[in-house]
Amino acid sequence: MKILVLNAGSSSCKYKLFNMDDHSVLCQGLVERIGDPTTGCLTHKIAPDTAKEEKISLEEPFKDHAVALNKVIELLTDAKKGVIKDTKEISVIGHRVLHGGYYQTQPALVDEACKKTIRDAFPLGPLHNPPNYTGIEVAEKLFPGVPNVAVFDTAFGMQMPEEAYTYALPKDLCKELQIRRYGFHGTSHTYLTHRGAAFMHKPLEEFNCITLHLGNGSSLGCVKNGKCIDTSMGLTPLEGVVMGTRCGSIDPAIVPYIMDQKGLSAKEVDTIMNKKSGLLGLCGQTDLRDMHRLADQENNADAILARKILIRSFKKQLGSFFFLLEGHVDCLIFSAGIGENDAKVRAGVVAGLESVGICLDKAKNETRSGDERDISTADSRVKVLVIPTNEELQIALTAQDVLAKSKKA
Amino acid sequence: MKILVLNAGSSSCKYKLFNMDDHSVLCQGLVERIGDPTTGCLTHKIAPDTAKEEKISLEEPFKDHAVALNKVIELLTDAKKGVIKDTKEISVIGHRVLHGGYYQTQPALVDEACKKTIRDAFPLGPLHNPPNYTGIEVAEKLFPGVPNVAVFDTAFGMQMPEEAYTYALPKDLCKELQIRRYGFHGTSHTYLTHRGAAFMHKPLEEFNCITLHLGNGSSLGCVKNGKCIDTSMGLTPLEGVVMGTRCGSIDPAIVPYIMDQKGLSAKEVDTIMNKKSGLLGLCGQTDLRDMHRLADQENNADAILARKILIRSFKKQLGSFFFLLEGHVDCLIFSAGIGENDAKVRAGVVAGLESVGICLDKAKNETRSGDERDISTADSRVKVLVIPTNEELQIALTAQDVLAKSKKA
Repeated sequence: MKILVLNAGSSSCKYKLFNMDDHSVLCQGLVERIGDPTTGCLTHKIAPDTAKEEKISLEEPFKDHAVALNKVIELLTDAKKGVIKDTKEISVIGHRVLHGGYYQTQPALVDEACKKTIRDAFPLGPLHNPPNYTGIEVAEKLFPGVPNVAVFDTAFGMQMPEEAYTYALPKDLCKELQIRRYGFHGTSHTYLTHRGAAFMHKPLEEFNCITLHLGNGSSLGCVKNGKCIDTSMGLTPLEGVVMGTRCGSIDPAIVPYIMDQKGLSAKEVDTIMNKKSGLLGLCGQTDLRDMHRLADQENNADAILARKILIRSFKKQLGSFFFLLEGHVDCLIFSAGIGENDAKVRAGVVAGLESVGICLDKAKNETRSGDERDISTADSRVKVLVIPTNEELQIALTAQDVLAKSKKA
Repeated sequence: MKILVLNAGSSSCKYKLFNMDDHSVLCQGLVERIGDPTTGCLTHKIAPDTAKEEKISLEEPFKDHAVALNKVIELLTDAKKGVIKDTKEISVIGHRVLHGGYYQTQPALVDEACKKTIRDAFPLGPLHNPPNYTGIEVAEKLFPGVPNVAVFDTAFGMQMPEEAYTYALPKDLCKELQIRRYGFHGTSHTYLTHRGAAFMHKPLEEFNCITLHLGNGSSLGCVKNGKCIDTSMGLTPLEGVVMGTRCGSIDPAIVPYIMDQKGLSAKEVDTIMNKKSGLLGLCGQTDLRDMHRLADQENNADAILARKILIRSFKKQLGSFFFLLEGHVDCLIFSAGIGENDAKVRAGVVAGLESVGICLDKAKNETRSGDERDISTADSRVKVLVIPTNEELQIALTAQDVLAKSKKA
């Protein structure tokens, strides 16, 4: 079975075609600058990360997502370089959709009701839901007869119990404005939870873990008996830990205070918190490698402080979830750009936690690898894993699952 | 030595006169409705909470704080019922001042510089600093020759390291607007820390604890080697855990979202978060006893949910501080209205935490008492204490200390 995964952004579209027999990637690519009348760019890789990898780059304007996706279909079905002969070989298309809104708790086969759900959630996901929606509409036209599945990034967080997702704000106001903790990076947290349970040889429904998706955007997931019981991001992806350009949780009264003192609009303060804060606001860098270089090689006080604040923020969030799980944690799972690659941050986050059963193996932590691995000591009561995330594969697996269930029904 | 403690609010003034030889209270009282031209009310107690307690109540208008304090002086020095003959018997007056601003890290003898500090912090403590300041100016006039000491509620939080008090917002903006985590309830957390170390027979500088000041307003303090290394309240007393009418920490992006969706001003949203949220927003009650009654006797779903959210919020904050201390915690200290009296909440907060060394003794927890007490099991690695807070005594002790140091200098 072949499954195409699409992630349509406002001016970009990522895609990946999986052979589900062995989860191998037949091809993948990225179209950028969609809508730019002067130029656009498409990068296409056949058999990526294998000995047979082949790369095709194109530069031409793509008027809209339909034009872009038509070009992708040409490449997929090209007589010489194509990996399929006909789009009908694709069993299902899995779409990444940011927000499922207040009522959608599960991934879903795309029909009119599902499309309405995505449209209704435009105010909650104003930057992502509209292009995600466009991607679905274009796919429906260009892949006639191929079913589409919407995989919502909020679905993981929709598993949370009421006491976890409810803010202590006026009840009626939250209901009216659909304010709740949604959580994001859900596809990644789901993938990590499933892989973690498999790694630990535990049935999912008996598996407790804390997932640390640490990248440009970062969030932690708290999983009990295989289900999300809390997550650090909230109504929006701003809440929680310190990120590249986002402040994470701060005193909410700071928003009116800044507005009042500086005469700024709510939108302007929102932009400051989302785009000009985090590591960028603290030390002028968004990439951790630059922060480390400044801190370690130039002894830069701002970078040293930013690193301390970042690690402290992860550690506090970890502690709060550890207490929610009452210490019954099978493993911590580090993932994404920082979590997979930054041994220094991992070491900082779990430093000194031996007394609660978390013991890092220094050598294992510092060994670079792309594999799923255990970096804790043999006698660590709580294991510490590094698992490379794979959101596209999780979307493909979810789409496959939804398709199978729809056929049974 | 006799020390008077004053806490001047916008329309009220609390006072307490201590005999520092045995820390007994000679008298205490409260003036209310100051500034109301039609009526005001003064309640004065001599030898409170003793067999000799005597209560005097007056109803008359108090034009301003000077009129009110003059009446208090009359009562203090009354020929029959007075506890002193002359105001000169008072060695020092300790004033509760909410906010010391960005630079003031210590309690201070009141002089022109100190008064400027308090005035400069008016924007940071707009509701409290102006009346606190008035209280000091009036005391200077009415108690000539008696030194005044300002005891700042932010002083405890000013001990925090930079990585704890710095928000991940743009550095220059924070500097310009003096945005940092200040923390509040500082006098209470200081008192609890000192009493906790004494109770545990540990030198303060080797004492680690987490203080839970849980009342109408609630905050947790994280203490390492006797010093504050973190606290849950931030720039304002809104941040942190869920409170009677305050939401605590929420996604800061909720503020612009509500403003945008409802067309509200920043001030209006600030009021919602401070006055209409917390338990009130969740279940219509601000008093925990009412919440328990609704939950337990009427099976009210909102009250049951509110209780879960409240306890969860305390537990998560506790976990984050436990991890900051890397598990090296001598004791937890519950205090204030909820912390001292609500066995159900205490039990909920530490439920299931045996694996990290916190073991509650159920019977001890449920025994009501006004004493400092240990409510953990004999083998609990981390002790759980209940210590009634006493902010007025702490202010008196601090004023005594500042006075002694100023005489040495």
